[in-house]
Amino acid sequence: MSATHEERLARTALCQLAEPGEARIRDLVADLGAVTLHELLLQDRDPHGVLTDVALRLADNDPERELDRAARLGIRFIIPGDDEWPSQIDGLEPVRGVRDRGGLPLGLWVKGPLRLNELQDSLAVVGSRSCTTYGIDVAGQISAEVAKTGTCVISGAAFGIDQAAHRGALSASGKTVAVLACGVDRCYPEAHANLLNYLAEHGAVVSEVPMGWSPMRSRFLARNRLIAGLARGTVVVEAAARSGALSTANWTTQLNRPLMAVPGPVTSEPSEGAHQLIRNGEATLVTRSAEVLELIKPSGEYLFEMPRGRERRRDRLSSRDAQVLEAVPVANPVAVDSISRTAGVGLVEAGRALQKLSAEGLVEQSKHGWRLTREART
Amino acid sequence: MSATHEERLARTALCQLAEPGEARIRDLVADLGAVTLHELLLQDRDPHGVLTDVALRLADNDPERELDRAARLGIRFIIPGDDEWPSQIDGLEPVRGVRDRGGLPLGLWVKGPLRLNELQDSLAVVGSRSCTTYGIDVAGQISAEVAKTGTCVISGAAFGIDQAAHRGALSASGKTVAVLACGVDRCYPEAHANLLNYLAEHGAVVSEVPMGWSPMRSRFLARNRLIAGLARGTVVVEAAARSGALSTANWTTQLNRPLMAVPGPVTSEPSEGAHQLIRNGEATLVTRSAEVLELIKPSGEYLFEMPRGRERRRDRLSSRDAQVLEAVPVANPVAVDSISRTAGVGLVEAGRALQKLSAEGLVEQSKHGWRLTREART
Repeated sequence: MSATHEERLARTALCQLAEPGEARIRDLVADLGAVTLHELLLQDRDPHGVLTDVALRLADNDPERELDRAARLGIRFIIPGDDEWPSQIDGLEPVRGVRDRGGLPLGLWVKGPLRLNELQDSLAVVGSRSCTTYGIDVAGQISAEVAKTGTCVISGAAFGIDQAAHRGALSASGKTVAVLACGVDRCYPEAHANLLNYLAEHGAVVSEVPMGWSPMRSRFLARNRLIAGLARGTVVVEAAARSGALSTANWTTQLNRPLMAVPGPVTSEPSEGAHQLIRNGEATLVTRSAEVLELIKPSGEYLFEMPRGRERRRDRLSSRDAQVLEAVPVANPVAVDSISRTAGVGLVEAGRALQKLSAEGLVEQSKHGWRLTREART
Repeated sequence: MSATHEERLARTALCQLAEPGEARIRDLVADLGAVTLHELLLQDRDPHGVLTDVALRLADNDPERELDRAARLGIRFIIPGDDEWPSQIDGLEPVRGVRDRGGLPLGLWVKGPLRLNELQDSLAVVGSRSCTTYGIDVAGQISAEVAKTGTCVISGAAFGIDQAAHRGALSASGKTVAVLACGVDRCYPEAHANLLNYLAEHGAVVSEVPMGWSPMRSRFLARNRLIAGLARGTVVVEAAARSGALSTANWTTQLNRPLMAVPGPVTSEPSEGAHQLIRNGEATLVTRSAEVLELIKPSGEYLFEMPRGRERRRDRLSSRDAQVLEAVPVANPVAVDSISRTAGVGLVEAGRALQKLSAEGLVEQSKHGWRLTREART
C-alpha cells in the first residue's frame, strides 16, 4: 500500500515551508489535510495567517522536481499511508495547540536499504558528543549486544556516543539508523561522511527536513523527538547536565516508553545527566544489555535474572554444618570446644562438621585451633 | 540519669551468654527484664529451655569483675536508661518471635571520648573491603564533607570503604565511630590497630559483644544492624553483589531510614551491589555530599538544588534575539536573508540581532555569511 502521489507532493511542498515540528502547519495539516492546505496556500489564501510567513519559501517550491532529484540520489520520501511508514512514530501525534517542536513529521526522507516499517524492535542509544572512553565502550557494547538479537539501534550521527552506538550495531552485523538534523543528502559532522555513507548503504539515514537543509540547533531539538518516536525505548549513556540527549530522554518519557540510563563514576561530568534521570525516577538504571532487552522486548521474551554473586559452597551446606561454620572465628583460631559451645552443638558433631568444612576449603586448622580460610572470609 | 548498677550487672552477664541478637535471650529480656532473667538463670531455673545452652558460659561469668576490667581499659558499658544511650538505636526494637539477628543490643561496649547520645546527626558509610580507588575517593570525600557539617560518620573498621570513611571524617576533624564485630579491646583487622587506637582516642569504638570476643561471620551480620541502627541514614559505596554492606543496607530499609547508593562504572564489579539497590528502588542514587545531606538533615536544612549546567548567555537573550540565534546554522555559513526567512523576522531586525549575538560570542561572520561559534554549538 502506498499513499497517493498527490499527498506525497503536497507534503513534500509543505515540509519545505516550515521548520520541523512547527505547530501551526502541523495543526492545519491535521485539520484540513496536507493536500487542501497546500492548495489553499497556492491559491494565495491564508489560513490562520500562515501564508505571510511561508510566502517566500513557497515561491521557489517545486515538489515534483524535488522528488525527482531525491530519486536520482537514492532518497525516498516516506509519508503516512505508505507501507514503509513506521507506525510507532504515530505516538508523536500532535497535541493540539501546544506550541512545541512536537507532533508527527510531515514525512521522512530516507536513504538506505533498511525499511522503516521494520524498526518495530528498536532501541535509541543516545548521549553526549564529549563523552569518555568508558561511555564509548558501554554504548558500543550495549548496542552490539542488542543488535545481535535483531533490535535496530537508532541514534544521531554525532561524535561520541552516537558514533559508538552505530559502530557497535555494525560490529554485530546488526541494523542501525541515523536520524539527522540536516538533509539526508548532507553530511554533518563532515568527519562522519564515511560513517553516514556506510549507513546509507547498509542501514538507513533519516531526516524530516528536506534535502539541502543545514543542521540548526532547533532542528536538532526537533530531530531528538524523532529518535524517541522511532524507538521502542531509549538508553542514555553519558549525557552531561544539558546534553541534547536529555531532550530525547524527555520525549521518551512523554511517549510513555522505557527510558533507561547507564550510571558512571560520580566524578565524571558526562554521567551527570544520566544520574539525574535516575535520581528523578525518570529513567531505570541499567548496567548491561540484558537489563535493556528485558524492558524493550515483548513481555517475558528476555527475562533477566539478577546476578546474585557466584554461588557459594556455603549455600549448599547442611544446616548443622552451616551452624558450626558460623561459630568459627575469622581471625585467631580457637579450639573445638569453644566452637561447639558457640554453635550450641555437641563436641563430637562439631568435630565432624569441622572436618567436612575443612574438606570444602572453608575452615583451616592450626596448632591453635580452627579458623575460617581466607576464601570463606570473603 | 543512669541505669541502676544492678541492671548493668545483669546485662553484662547476659551479653556474655549469647551471640549478639540471639532471639530467645532478647525476647526473655523484653518479657522479664534483664535482672529477673539473670536471677532465674543463676537460680538454675530454665525459662524456655535457654539454660542448657548457656550453662557453660554462665559458670565462669563474673559481671562485676568484667566491668572493673573494662573501667581499667577505659571501656564503658552503656545500657538503655543511661544518658548516653543512643535513642535512635531503639528503632531496632525486637520483632517478637522472629528468629533473626535483629533486636536491640543488651548494651554497648564503648571506648573513646565521643558520647553515643551525641550521634543523633549521623551517617553510615559502608562498602566493600575489595573496593577500587574510585570508591575510596568518593567514600572519603562524602565522609569528609558530611563530617564538616557536624554529622558523625559511622562505619566498620575493615579495609577499603570503612577505612576511607573514617579517614575522610578525621581529615575534616569530624566525628567518626567504628562499630566492631569483636570486643572493643581487640583489633581486627590487626593492620588497623593504629586506626582503631586513634578512633578510641578521638571518636568512639563500639561493639555489643563482650571484651575478648573474636570476630565471627555471624557477629559481622549482627554488627551490621547496629551500624544501620546508630545512623540516621546509610550510604553504600561500592558493595559487590553479596557484600556485607548490603546487609547494613537492608537493615536501613527495615528501619525506614534513608538508604543511598553511589553509582560507579557498570564495568566495575564492586559497584554491582549499589546499582542493584538503585535498580530495585531500595536506594536513592546519590552523587555528592549535598544530595546526602538533603536526605539525612532535618527537613529543609540542606536543600540541594539540582545542577542545571553552567548558565548560558543564551538563557539571557531577548526572545527576538533567541529566535534569530535558532535560525543560524551550525556548520556552513548562510546569508542574512536566509536567516531572516528561517527565523521569520524582518531583514533589518535579523541583521541587528546578529550583530548583538556576535558581540556575545554566539555567532560569527565570514564572507559566506553567518554561523554559530564553536562555543554556541555545544
